[in-house]
Formats: sequence, structure tokens, C-alpha cells
Amino acid sequence: MRPSIHHIAIAVRDMDAALALYGEALGLEVSARREVPEEGVEIAFLPAGDGEIELIRPLDTANSVARFLEKRGEGLHHICLKVANLEEALERLRRAGVRTIGEPRTSAAGTRYIFLHPLSTRGVLIELYEER
Amino acid sequence: MRPSIHHIAIAVRDMDAALALYGEALGLEVSARREVPEEGVEIAFLPAGDGEIELIRPLDTANSVARFLEKRGEGLHHICLKVANLEEALERLRRAGVRTIGEPRTSAAGTRYIFLHPLSTRGVLIELYEER
Repeated sequence: MRPSIHHIAIAVRDMDAALALYGEALGLEVSARREVPEEGVEIAFLPAGDGEIELIRPLDTANSVARFLEKRGEGLHHICLKVANLEEALERLRRAGVRTIGEPRTSAAGTRYIFLHPLSTRGVLIELYEER
Repeated sequence: MRPSIHHIAIAVRDMDAALALYGEALGLEVSARREVPEEGVEIAFLPAGDGEIELIRPLDTANSVARFLEKRGEGLHHICLKVANLEEALERLRRAGVRTIGEPRTSAAGTRYIFLHPLSTRGVLIELYEER
């Protein structure tokens, strides 16, 4: 199975204003909105076909999303591709010289995920997901 | 019908290197690669689930993709959402204060499309598609 687009993540400073745009004005449905204090962010999900738009707002000034906003302003932050087998995908990527940010982690929902370093992926922060 | 993710566009300087990453290393299939001289770009499409990754390389230094690369380097360039009715979508967006870049155009394949101005969409260049 080839990878598919799981989500597009957008960094925002003002979640209400972003939801007014992507929800009301663009017509996407907001399926969830919650704070994730352990990651220092508030997130909202808006399904869009097979994939979804994920809005991310930093809750403090210390994390990587806050630094992204400081440096580049609001905008496209990363894309996430769903793969069938994360270990196989990583083996192939590492052979091609792609570096990861740390090792794979498992979310509370059981999804295994990892970020690829944008300096090794031609400027795009790419997340890989393997759903279990 | 709500909007769905049609494609994610990535600006690249080196198409062969980008295809080695997204095609060979990430395992996406390259469905097409061609130059579009009238827009001054080379493009490649890699289907990924319901949507696709679109790689864009400028053929000269004068167009907006070339200016994007000059300013920000390789990376995420825009996202495209497919809508059921472009006129209805634009009416709602304009009421919400969103500005467009020009007026809707029709591609050779009959797709109607328009770009929303990132200064009115919280930093994200958003393209809207209506397939006929």
C-alpha cells in the first residue's frame, strides 16, 4: 500500500479566527478542538475528504510551533502521510539519507508516528503515521 | 458536499532530487511529469490516497514560484481544496473578508480554479478547484 495524505497541519496564532476561516467561511466541519498541555498546544481537526486539516496553536512560547510562528508567521507547518508499515518506510528513507527527529513514538490512541527532519526532506516537515 | 483535500503543492529547485525523495524513498508513484511553459514551471504529480502531492519547479526566475524559492527556500507552497460549487464558495469567502488573486480561470481539462490571497487566509496560499 502506498502512503496517503493523512493531514495538513497549519500553525495559527488565533484559533477562533482560524476556525472562522476554515470552518465557517471554507465550510469544513470542526470534528474536535482540544488543548494538549503535555505538548504545549491547542489543536483542532477539520476533516476534508480522506484527510484532514489540523490547526495548531501554541499554548506557550517555548515549543517548536511557537518558534515557527515567531520565525515565519502563520502558515503551513507540516504534512502527515499515513504509511502501512512505519519501520519499513523508515528503513527505506534512512537508506536514502533522510534523518528523523528522534525515534518513533506511540500516541494514546495507539498510532505510531515520527517526524522527518526538514533539512533532509527538501524543506518540508513530514510526519509519518502508522495506525494500528 | 464539504471541501476535500485535492493536492499539496511543494516548491522545489531540483525536480530529480525531489522525485527521488517523494517517489523512491517515500514510495509514492509518479503519475505525471511535464513542463508547462505558459506558466513557467515543471510539475510532477504523485497520488497519495484521495489527494496528491504536486511538485513545482520554476523554469525561469520571473514567476511567483521562483520568488517563493528565493525568499523561503524549498518547502510547502500551497494547498488545494476541491469544492462542489466555486461561485458559492467564493461568495461565502468574500463575505468573510477573504480576497482572491484575480478571478476564476478554467484549465485545459475544464477545471475551474482560483487562488485565495494568503494575506487574507492567515498565511496559507489556498487554491480552490471545481471539477466539471
